[in-house]
Amino acid sequence: MNTTQSFFRSRWIEVPGCVSEPAEGLPRGFRAAGVACGIKPSGGLDLGLLVSDARQTTSAARFTRSGTQSAPALLCRERCDLTGIRAVVVNSGNANAATGRPGYEHAAKMQGATAIACGVGSAGAVAVASTGVIGVPLPIDSVMRGIAAAAHALRQDGENDFADAIRTTDAFAKRACLDVELGGGTVRLTAQAKGAGMISPNFATLLCFVQTDAALSAETADLLLSVCIKRSFERISVDGQLSTSDTVILQSSGESGIRIEPETDDELLFGEALDAVLRQLALYIARDGEGARRVGRVVVRGGDARAVQRVAHAVADSPLVKTALHGGDPNWGRIVQAVGAAMPGTAPLEVDVSIEGITVCTRGQQVPHDADALRAAVQGDEIEYEIDLPGEGAETERFFSDLGHEYVTLNAEYTT
Amino acid sequence: MNTTQSFFRSRWIEVPGCVSEPAEGLPRGFRAAGVACGIKPSGGLDLGLLVSDARQTTSAARFTRSGTQSAPALLCRERCDLTGIRAVVVNSGNANAATGRPGYEHAAKMQGATAIACGVGSAGAVAVASTGVIGVPLPIDSVMRGIAAAAHALRQDGENDFADAIRTTDAFAKRACLDVELGGGTVRLTAQAKGAGMISPNFATLLCFVQTDAALSAETADLLLSVCIKRSFERISVDGQLSTSDTVILQSSGESGIRIEPETDDELLFGEALDAVLRQLALYIARDGEGARRVGRVVVRGGDARAVQRVAHAVADSPLVKTALHGGDPNWGRIVQAVGAAMPGTAPLEVDVSIEGITVCTRGQQVPHDADALRAAVQGDEIEYEIDLPGEGAETERFFSDLGHEYVTLNAEYTT
Repeated sequence: MNTTQSFFRSRWIEVPGCVSEPAEGLPRGFRAAGVACGIKPSGGLDLGLLVSDARQTTSAARFTRSGTQSAPALLCRERCDLTGIRAVVVNSGNANAATGRPGYEHAAKMQGATAIACGVGSAGAVAVASTGVIGVPLPIDSVMRGIAAAAHALRQDGENDFADAIRTTDAFAKRACLDVELGGGTVRLTAQAKGAGMISPNFATLLCFVQTDAALSAETADLLLSVCIKRSFERISVDGQLSTSDTVILQSSGESGIRIEPETDDELLFGEALDAVLRQLALYIARDGEGARRVGRVVVRGGDARAVQRVAHAVADSPLVKTALHGGDPNWGRIVQAVGAAMPGTAPLEVDVSIEGITVCTRGQQVPHDADALRAAVQGDEIEYEIDLPGEGAETERFFSDLGHEYVTLNAEYTT
Repeated sequence: MNTTQSFFRSRWIEVPGCVSEPAEGLPRGFRAAGVACGIKPSGGLDLGLLVSDARQTTSAARFTRSGTQSAPALLCRERCDLTGIRAVVVNSGNANAATGRPGYEHAAKMQGATAIACGVGSAGAVAVASTGVIGVPLPIDSVMRGIAAAAHALRQDGENDFADAIRTTDAFAKRACLDVELGGGTVRLTAQAKGAGMISPNFATLLCFVQTDAALSAETADLLLSVCIKRSFERISVDGQLSTSDTVILQSSGESGIRIEPETDDELLFGEALDAVLRQLALYIARDGEGARRVGRVVVRGGDARAVQRVAHAVADSPLVKTALHGGDPNWGRIVQAVGAAMPGTAPLEVDVSIEGITVCTRGQQVPHDADALRAAVQGDEIEYEIDLPGEGAETERFFSDLGHEYVTLNAEYTT
């Protein structure tokens, strides 16, 4: 097992024993394609299509809660059967957000055209996603031509083209292709994600599509996706900016014939595999873009669960902590500052802080430590911060990217 | 009046007719000094002392609510008569934060020594503030020598040295010296502030000291300070980071003999002057540091007062908006994204957005506009964004600095 660890690269991911790499191709029942339809000025792939040919396909989905969410996100909520998504159509280069009623009609046209082109029958079985510039009308004619072309190009090994077509400013493609050994046999689990971490002005979005040929009920799919998103995408912070278009969809074709029943060992194993995949993808997203050198993980423990969450967010979102992480600066005063800001009115707060296992602050007071060892410890790719607040019983973690010059360059010098 | 507008520079400040510049020297009753006591490696001024010689001095004060606030902030809360602060002692170069019980004892020593050196009798009449590196013990012996030296150097025109001594990474000194014409005569109003806007790692703090020779009751001082802080320092966002050490103190010596009674025209005039001074100082703080090119002002209106506040914060704190401001990029999609993120679950939100008076989005949908005119409009020093949410009756504003390379350089490449 795990002979070539090309996908799992973080020490913070526990790779389940039931998972094996390498594998190639989508799970049975799925086909995908990516084409260039002319939205991106570069001429790059900008329309992706992914379809399950199995009638019994089940699904679960999550969308951004933004008040200014994109037309496709609104459409999916209003016009999709989210438990039975057969096809997914995605364009990059234009977010179809802040486009009003005309934008909504464009999203509906994409949905209808995809249903016909892929032969899935009902438009409600097609999910739509768009990522790219905000506030520009979608070139719908190009998109419609792209859908027709992509439908003809669908292949069982089309996942790479699909993954490329959903990228915007991503520095590298993010995809997983794994086999998962369950009690009843082996199922495949694949995923394609995009997200350079909201780094880019109008190109800010997290998209993630996950496929398996295991047979899951819609309820089981929803439960597993819900748990795993909370431990992955909801724990990353790049710049704290919620997108207009975040979309995560899990589809299960059932074509392996292996059914995963609730509260069984197989459900547990499959859940562990899904958890590891989404966590690693989340870390890739934190790692990508903006020339990020390092990824941080902050672990917060204490007696007050809400305070623990607030502190984790405050540290992970702090530009002072992020710039220190970027610079390889063991600047623990910034950690203390962020903790204090998140807990107003509690002074003097008895907080413990350690960085890469080196304790720098105990009960709110600095403690002598080897400054050279600390500085050496923060030069790596992954830096861990542990914060202990008073009390016990609650714990959380957050992953965050650093903040460097590339972020400013990409975002300040981007030209609309 | 206002013959030389050296202090008021922003179009967002209404300069009251009762205020005149230039003026020099502290209000009657006050003396100040700044000396170098050896905390700053540069040898620069790092200890400031300011004292009112009037026994009847009244005061009002506000401090950070951080859970990890500095020892001096804690000490002031616990051991000062905040309605009768006669003297203020401030050191820069060391924040005396995360220093535990020993740090608290150091702050108490500063307080006691200043009371004796300045002859103000009670230690409770001395406020203490420290700004600089977090988590390093204060070199208390140097500080004590500095207090003795500063007490000998106190002068009625010592405000400039005092203002210099409280600076850390501030690119320029921030001080006001004005005459205010009231019905009963003219009073002086002076202020010294520091704050490059939390930009710097361990040197993150807003300090502001305000003096007048008008006679204010402690209650009136507290009321006026409370209202004016809400409209100034509480409306600026540099990087959203609450400091361990924020301190604002207003002192009134009464030595002009002109008493400001509650609910009089004079109270209104003095309040307007104080408001203008604190707002301009707040804008200087947003402008300072990190090579900030531009300052933004976001005005939000709508029917839900809490939503209006949330949206103003979200826009002002967004790194995407800040980098666009820096780059002179009229990237209104980022405004829409920030608004939506602050109002989850409200889609489709009917938001209007205009930038420098040019409407770019109406009821959530882009509207045609002159892109060249918009781009030209965002090249200035001060850029205004207006956001109209559904409903009416609530309105707020926030001022914010941009985010550029200098911020990253200062914070990532700073060496502890």
